Amino acid sequence: MIKFRPVVFVTGILLSIMAIAMIIPAIVDAAAGHPDWRVFATSSALSLSIGICMMLATNATWTNLNLREAFVITNFAWLTIAVAGAIPLAFSELELSVTDAFFESMSGITTTGSTVIVGLDTSPPGILLWRGILQWLGGIGIIVMAVAILPILQVGGMQMFRIEAFDADKVLPKAAQIATAIAIFYVFITIGAAIVLSLLGMSGFDAIIHAMTSISTGGFSTYDASIGHFDAPSIHWAISGFMILGSIPFILYLRVIRGDLNSLLTDSQVKTFLIILGLSTLAIACWLWQNGDMTFWTAMRLSSFNVISLMTGTGFTSEDYGQWGGFSLSLMFILMFVGGCAGSTTCGMKIFRVQILYATTKAQLNRLIQPNGIFFPTYNNEPIPESVSNSVMSFFFLFAVSFVLLAVGLGAFGLDFITAISGAATAIANVGPGLGDIIGPAGNFQTIPDGAKWLMSAGMLLGRLELFTILVMILPRFWRG
Amino acid sequence: MIKFRPVVFVTGILLSIMAIAMIIPAIVDAAAGHPDWRVFATSSALSLSIGICMMLATNATWTNLNLREAFVITNFAWLTIAVAGAIPLAFSELELSVTDAFFESMSGITTTGSTVIVGLDTSPPGILLWRGILQWLGGIGIIVMAVAILPILQVGGMQMFRIEAFDADKVLPKAAQIATAIAIFYVFITIGAAIVLSLLGMSGFDAIIHAMTSISTGGFSTYDASIGHFDAPSIHWAISGFMILGSIPFILYLRVIRGDLNSLLTDSQVKTFLIILGLSTLAIACWLWQNGDMTFWTAMRLSSFNVISLMTGTGFTSEDYGQWGGFSLSLMFILMFVGGCAGSTTCGMKIFRVQILYATTKAQLNRLIQPNGIFFPTYNNEPIPESVSNSVMSFFFLFAVSFVLLAVGLGAFGLDFITAISGAATAIANVGPGLGDIIGPAGNFQTIPDGAKWLMSAGMLLGRLELFTILVMILPRFWRG
Repeated sequence: MIKFRPVVFVTGILLSIMAIAMIIPAIVDAAAGHPDWRVFATSSALSLSIGICMMLATNATWTNLNLREAFVITNFAWLTIAVAGAIPLAFSELELSVTDAFFESMSGITTTGSTVIVGLDTSPPGILLWRGILQWLGGIGIIVMAVAILPILQVGGMQMFRIEAFDADKVLPKAAQIATAIAIFYVFITIGAAIVLSLLGMSGFDAIIHAMTSISTGGFSTYDASIGHFDAPSIHWAISGFMILGSIPFILYLRVIRGDLNSLLTDSQVKTFLIILGLSTLAIACWLWQNGDMTFWTAMRLSSFNVISLMTGTGFTSEDYGQWGGFSLSLMFILMFVGGCAGSTTCGMKIFRVQILYATTKAQLNRLIQPNGIFFPTYNNEPIPESVSNSVMSFFFLFAVSFVLLAVGLGAFGLDFITAISGAATAIANVGPGLGDIIGPAGNFQTIPDGAKWLMSAGMLLGRLELFTILVMILPRFWRG
Repeated sequence: MIKFRPVVFVTGILLSIMAIAMIIPAIVDAAAGHPDWRVFATSSALSLSIGICMMLATNATWTNLNLREAFVITNFAWLTIAVAGAIPLAFSELELSVTDAFFESMSGITTTGSTVIVGLDTSPPGILLWRGILQWLGGIGIIVMAVAILPILQVGGMQMFRIEAFDADKVLPKAAQIATAIAIFYVFITIGAAIVLSLLGMSGFDAIIHAMTSISTGGFSTYDASIGHFDAPSIHWAISGFMILGSIPFILYLRVIRGDLNSLLTDSQVKTFLIILGLSTLAIACWLWQNGDMTFWTAMRLSSFNVISLMTGTGFTSEDYGQWGGFSLSLMFILMFVGGCAGSTTCGMKIFRVQILYATTKAQLNRLIQPNGIFFPTYNNEPIPESVSNSVMSFFFLFAVSFVLLAVGLGAFGLDFITAISGAATAIANVGPGLGDIIGPAGNFQTIPDGAKWLMSAGMLLGRLELFTILVMILPRFWRG
């Protein structure tokens, strides 16, 4: 039997945190004299009362959870946060439909960044801030999950990182301590990013929101033109840097702070991530330089910003890269799937999984030549346990199947081929913009049918929770005694 | 050390077979009074002399080949056949460039069916027949390989079929005997198909060629409009049936002939294939019926023909399905990758691999709930050996990576996004037409750049030889002592 008391209790805690977070946009709107402050204040009161009731009614603790309860809590918590996040959006002066509010909120907390709001430039400040906060909370939420929960649940090979974080690392032995340290670092790095952006010419308000949505690789902007709104190349470069910062395993930053710079410099996931990013940026820059009417350095700036934005799953745009030709588009499309490093705010399959797939497949090919030879695939100089490579292989298959079913489903709601496949990809890899005229970098998700929005919301959550966490619940065995 | 004598010897045999096959179009052209008969006669003489020289110079035998030699022979043989097949195409009155002739020949022997020839309706009969013969030989070639060679090479899980064919099956114990029996059956089924098509109103010439290119799931037609040229629905249904016949493991037909109908009816690969095919056809038919201006039965006919043609990797078209909307296109795009059953003439990943991926992944998800539980994935009611599921998983990863690199490469030659990704898919899954205005069902491969044609030719061979067979040769270990 699955005990539901702890599920309700934990959800109550998270609802209360959301309620507290809603006070910030309420204050900002009140200070700006905007009537939406009442919406945030009411939503906050509502969330807080429900949250406290849930806690009081159950009075359970985290302890003695079994695996299945941990899965239920994780899924239920993220879903509830998405619902809570949608409340102020639905009742604000933007008058979003329930579907649109839920889509925007889910896109926020999963750090996807697809938006249904047209006219961000004139939207109330509370709403803009709330969207930033949703992504920022989603970002830290996923890092903590990747460090503390997914390895225990053995989701898609994440058990690899269990050993590293909890056994080998003697200095910060406990999950809660590590999570707290990461959260503090996350706050500081965001403040730092906001200061840099305001020094480069952004208003304080824009700087804070773009700092939050860059570090969390979220991608919500305060302008319809996204980062294309800002002319200064220095802002583009700075945001590129923050997106990369948000895509490195945060646990490595803690080590660097303790003086262990080496663990960052020698980490094979980080190295591979930066190499793929660098080579892809260079390749697309060369392509733009040869085929477009621009200097090499302009090509490098455009290429690097948009490649980083897509590969990290942020989804900021500085340019309509939909016009960059088949080479750039297919390469960027693949990078969306690959994503950044596990243990960061980034999305997609994650670099370590690509490394494990590569190493396992290479060993497999070697076995063809010497069927009796013994080949151990390695990751970060350690042999990859069979269970990890099986898990990653299954993850890859599920990722492909989920993508495909999502695309077919979106097509069933009437989307054309390009919109359907890029919409499925951008949802499951938590990126933001798709391709084509409708949802491409110059488009918006406003106009797609409601059913497609719900399906994409489901896809975002599925991708963000690394598939396994949700899909395990559809097995009959999960609900048996 | 790899011995090259057997490689040269076997290639010599195959060249001689090609030379003999070239005599047929030479006779047809001569009978029709077409000057191209000289081209075929000369090509035949050339191939035969080179083939015989190769055999005489080496005088080796098949015996005592090691694994690496078997890989080299397989790859070299297919490449040489493609080159030989291109000779008459290059020198015929069509005046194809070397690139176009090689592309067309490779598309033929790999049973892909993409064509660069515009004006098939007025092309000389010898050329049309030669294209049909190339696909027909490619079809039997791949069946024999799947039965006799790939299982021994352990390519992508094909070792599963080694047991079935050579140990359990006592009645036809030897590879050569099985191959001969299959070849005889292949001849008869093709003759049968030709008779049916001519009874349904095709000319004898068209009936023979379409029989050869249906059974081999190749897809070359004698008309630019492909099967759309024929008005009679009965012809569409008949060809649908032949494409399905060509997509079932041929070894099962031998069993049926010996009275064991049950092994066909209970084969899980065949069942799964027909279920996926049936459900997809029905889904797309319902979509067309709801969204188009046609009766349900017209929708069923259009849907079934084109779904069967794409899923089996044949690539005949009866209609410009490029206009069928995002739902139909994304579903058909995926079916192209899936393909038919292993041990048939069909292409793509093959059904049994999808089944093994599904079973392995399901076991993996079950392990998440009960980490100490023991879950054996099964195929056809037998447990799947770990080595097979690893091999299939690696195959899936390589398939995805090859597709992606091919798409990026095609983009680099200037193809737009849709043309690049559908071109990569249609090449590696050996289907035929792609999507979009250029290479879609209403288009032709004539206009794409030469570099893209060479790349697609490489992709076709890679897909046809099940990736592993070729990719194993890029490992340094392959060439070491």
